[in-house]
Amino acid sequence: MKKILLIGAGRSSSSLIAYLLEHAKTENWTLTIADISKENANAKLGGDPSGNAIALDIHNSVATTAEIEKADLVLSMLPAHMHISVARECVRLKKHLVTASYVSAEMQELDAAATSAGIILLNECGLDPGIDHMSAMEVIDRVHKEGGKISSFKSYTGGLVAPESNDNPWGYKFSWNPRNVILAGQGTACYIEEGNYKYVPYNRLFTHVDKIAVKGIGTFDGYPNRDSLSYRKIYQLDNIQTMLRGTLRQDGFCKAWNIFVQLGLTDDSYKIEDASKLSYASLLEAFLPTAKGNQSLRKRLADFAGLAEEDEAIKLIEWTGILEDKALGVTKASPAEILQSLLEKKWILRKEDKDMIVMQHDFEYEMENKKFRQKSSLVVKGDDSVYTAMAKTVGLPAAIATRLILSGKIQSRGVQIPVGKEIYFPVLQELEKSGIKFVHQLEERS
Amino acid sequence: MKKILLIGAGRSSSSLIAYLLEHAKTENWTLTIADISKENANAKLGGDPSGNAIALDIHNSVATTAEIEKADLVLSMLPAHMHISVARECVRLKKHLVTASYVSAEMQELDAAATSAGIILLNECGLDPGIDHMSAMEVIDRVHKEGGKISSFKSYTGGLVAPESNDNPWGYKFSWNPRNVILAGQGTACYIEEGNYKYVPYNRLFTHVDKIAVKGIGTFDGYPNRDSLSYRKIYQLDNIQTMLRGTLRQDGFCKAWNIFVQLGLTDDSYKIEDASKLSYASLLEAFLPTAKGNQSLRKRLADFAGLAEEDEAIKLIEWTGILEDKALGVTKASPAEILQSLLEKKWILRKEDKDMIVMQHDFEYEMENKKFRQKSSLVVKGDDSVYTAMAKTVGLPAAIATRLILSGKIQSRGVQIPVGKEIYFPVLQELEKSGIKFVHQLEERS
Repeated sequence: MKKILLIGAGRSSSSLIAYLLEHAKTENWTLTIADISKENANAKLGGDPSGNAIALDIHNSVATTAEIEKADLVLSMLPAHMHISVARECVRLKKHLVTASYVSAEMQELDAAATSAGIILLNECGLDPGIDHMSAMEVIDRVHKEGGKISSFKSYTGGLVAPESNDNPWGYKFSWNPRNVILAGQGTACYIEEGNYKYVPYNRLFTHVDKIAVKGIGTFDGYPNRDSLSYRKIYQLDNIQTMLRGTLRQDGFCKAWNIFVQLGLTDDSYKIEDASKLSYASLLEAFLPTAKGNQSLRKRLADFAGLAEEDEAIKLIEWTGILEDKALGVTKASPAEILQSLLEKKWILRKEDKDMIVMQHDFEYEMENKKFRQKSSLVVKGDDSVYTAMAKTVGLPAAIATRLILSGKIQSRGVQIPVGKEIYFPVLQELEKSGIKFVHQLEERS
Repeated sequence: MKKILLIGAGRSSSSLIAYLLEHAKTENWTLTIADISKENANAKLGGDPSGNAIALDIHNSVATTAEIEKADLVLSMLPAHMHISVARECVRLKKHLVTASYVSAEMQELDAAATSAGIILLNECGLDPGIDHMSAMEVIDRVHKEGGKISSFKSYTGGLVAPESNDNPWGYKFSWNPRNVILAGQGTACYIEEGNYKYVPYNRLFTHVDKIAVKGIGTFDGYPNRDSLSYRKIYQLDNIQTMLRGTLRQDGFCKAWNIFVQLGLTDDSYKIEDASKLSYASLLEAFLPTAKGNQSLRKRLADFAGLAEEDEAIKLIEWTGILEDKALGVTKASPAEILQSLLEKKWILRKEDKDMIVMQHDFEYEMENKKFRQKSSLVVKGDDSVYTAMAKTVGLPAAIATRLILSGKIQSRGVQIPVGKEIYFPVLQELEKSGIKFVHQLEERS
């Protein structure tokens, strides 16, 4: 009997838990669902006899250690910065660990110790990072094996709303951590384009948009996501001329969001003075140039953005309610926190709503003096607001990897991400059974 | 015989040292100049028999403690973040401390302990912060004492080049820490204007410029500096309607500097890839939108900035050399570090150059149903590149306060800044002897 400990049973864990419980009998597993809230853990377990639910605060290191000690494998779905203490205990107690988060510098430092302990610390095994790596490496390995040379790789991913549930002008609802959505893109994005490095600071990010057409689904805004340069090495594309990873949003989203960025309303670095006394309109006022004359707030906002009042982007901003004379209802909050609380009322994924994940890779390569272009795209829709496309695509790769580790099919040890065939091949195969399947279009170019 | 320990003998310490040595005999002092470089400390001492020079690394806590133990008062001219360990030792060993830096949260926490120890930790006793506080409080205390009510206070300070030494189009040379100049303004500035809060994020800071006329000197660019709101309480102006602290630069500086900001060249948060292989032109290229057609780099820069190629701001950028096809000459550096290394070659204060400090307070107040406006301005020129206006205005207040503490004229204890009359009155009086004297213009308004 193998024991799996899942720590953190938030929004993205529903499909993961369903998969693990579904396979528990045949694989001879038990699953312990540990969450800060026992009630939440219990709800996620749903009375399934193959598991149990417990309350666990990972800041209680005695209790955490005791639970890790009982397990064969730990799945951490905690916020990214909380993995490291769990990872250290996993190394010490020789337990495998799976996460869906980026490898932090501290995590990387555990590589040798994890290898010595004979365990795997498998990270980046969700959607983005996760499915993006696996599906890209499948194409890259094939092209390289066939003697081809990849000159360009652009890859975009977005967590969106399915068209049938899209009833707001932004085409966006929160299917994961709202805070991360508000702060998305802060810092500087970098990529390489025809051999030239490109740097895009946050203040220009949402104007730096490519229109990305995805067959059968439509055209989206795509903007660069963080550091694309480091993926050259990870994907064995060291000398590639063009490499860009990006994020997808509904067409028109970025133009409107950029207004919030330019105003300064996505800033999380300080608290607004006397927030309890302010309305949304007076908050907006505080970020606009001082009024000259008697113009409406809407007109002044449009002038600030250099747009006509009738512009679609202004309508999107107005739709959020930020021009309204309604109390903020917060006491001490940053601009970003206030914007988040406003949007949380507007961008709600309702019970029956379906979200949608769209990912598209765009490769250009040469083989035997011929030029090819391959687009590989993935569209996944949620069932509802619990079994979201986000929960499926983030959770299932981690769940499947768990199965493969426990059954001995994944033998890699140390700190890993799923770029090796041993991992990506069986995971992608299994994902197809859940309808997570890429469509490939390959064309020869003149 | 009183013993003064000066830690840190950098650029801003020349006038401070000269003052302390000049008064050493009559005041019965000895001065120990401690610097990471003994050579530098020796050069600053210049063989004066009233002092001695030593090498001291404040990371060596044993040596630092031994030196503090010997002193009656410590003057720390270290970078701001290094004061705190010195301050803790001063409290423990019951020694007074003077700095020219902002009170950090950690410093503030020492207040009760310093009071119990019977010592003063006097901070913000330089120029800005320092002379700004003292000169403002002198006016504020007078108006309040006479029954007036201040409705508006705007205060601007700049470290500039004297007109007779101004031979570059930016009107700027480095008279203090170049890094701080490059990073100036990062974060969000906030102030209050006619009762309304105003927030100006960095990406708009250098477009948010008021033209500030200073009598007899000219008109400058003034932009808001950090958090003006917290000064309402410090200056006992809790209900003031307009309060703004700002920074002065030569007319036209901000428009050009904003281009660097918009490009992302003042970002210090990451390192440029393959910097050793890049030229300034290719670095600039990496921050500009991708070339379409065969336009010159200059034309593309002008288009990016939304300006004509002949615009003065474009000329300022070109003058820095950033359009040149010359190697960066760095291996691992952030955009800000690269820009700094470029400007350090251009914005050199030559041996005979005179820098210039300009400060102007602009008060509006009511008294006996009459409205008044008072402008108080200070212009200080340097003697040369050693006895700069910056060194005088940063160092002399700290030196004078040292004298007043050691002679018992300053009796305040605990963590202090020079906003009380006990401190500002004698310091301002003494500063006048060194030509640091405000000119006041008072007018009654209809």
